[in-house]
Amino acid sequence: MKGSKRRTTILESAAPIFNQRGYAGTSISEILDATSLEKGGLYNHFSSKEELATAAFDFAWEAVNRYFSEALAGASPGAPYLHAYVDAFARYVRRPVVDGGCPLANAALEADDALPFLRGRVRKAFESVRSFVRHHVDRAVELGQFRAGIEVESVADFTIASLQGALLLSRGARSRGSLERVAASLHDWLRSLERPAR
Amino acid sequence: MKGSKRRTTILESAAPIFNQRGYAGTSISEILDATSLEKGGLYNHFSSKEELATAAFDFAWEAVNRYFSEALAGASPGAPYLHAYVDAFARYVRRPVVDGGCPLANAALEADDALPFLRGRVRKAFESVRSFVRHHVDRAVELGQFRAGIEVESVADFTIASLQGALLLSRGARSRGSLERVAASLHDWLRSLERPAR
Repeated sequence: MKGSKRRTTILESAAPIFNQRGYAGTSISEILDATSLEKGGLYNHFSSKEELATAAFDFAWEAVNRYFSEALAGASPGAPYLHAYVDAFARYVRRPVVDGGCPLANAALEADDALPFLRGRVRKAFESVRSFVRHHVDRAVELGQFRAGIEVESVADFTIASLQGALLLSRGARSRGSLERVAASLHDWLRSLERPAR
Repeated sequence: MKGSKRRTTILESAAPIFNQRGYAGTSISEILDATSLEKGGLYNHFSSKEELATAAFDFAWEAVNRYFSEALAGASPGAPYLHAYVDAFARYVRRPVVDGGCPLANAALEADDALPFLRGRVRKAFESVRSFVRHHVDRAVELGQFRAGIEVESVADFTIASLQGALLLSRGARSRGSLERVAASLHDWLRSLERPAR
């Protein structure tokens, strides 16, 4: 198998393991078991556990981004895009494309105190989510879908926070109903930002 | 030192370590270093790492509950209580009483796929949070503060989710501003549920 192909195969196995068991909680021997590699074979591609964990986070995060790009491909800009994002997020929580839930949420709570090597990546990933959500809130105002006076950054952060919290609640409380209720409330709240029809 | 006093001393050291580094990411030797105990001394009190981790979660969660009981001691029932809860939560995120953030959020995302021994506790803890928030939403309707038609469970879940997500966003994106924006949006949203004055 060619080097880069083999690298991808390793990450395909490693990413869901890290995402489920945590970066600190996963041992190299678990990765070796899952990939049927010898230690030397793994270290041909990744010089340390940190390097492997970082590459696995990137791999998982790219998969999540691909999922959302595809899920939102047909959505119109502005408010319809935000509503489609809420639905796509809820579908993601029900069926994550990487086993173990949201790689960003998982890494965020693990990296905040531990894993300094992942912290910068987590911050950048959140920044990119906030920037695309803000973009569509901005567009919604420009297109006259949302009222002009709304605070764009607050709307974006509230949207992202309630979705991340819905994920946490649905996984921690094992309550599928919570996810549906939060998504429905968020749809209602986004509708409350609409400009009243003249 | 008496047995139960020594047990508490161990948990005082262990709880913040688990809360920061994760339950899987913390080794017994880190706990021994922090407590200056010999292995035998630790195993006098806790028969396994799982038992210690479970007791440390309970210890941290009790500290959080004490914090909220004290912070909310003077709040009037119903809507004022919910607003006070939002503020107390935001203060908690800024200065957690247990280093490492919210033990429930941390344990929730770690226990969902791994740590089966903690899963039941996480679910019960979420259940108790949901039940007290629901109680005050209910009271707000009874007291005529909130409109009669609101969906109590949705209001409760949306409140909890947006707070948990604000924590995640503020720790992962390292953005203090996000916490303030989500708290302000949540206050506004709770006010939007009020019964219009006659």
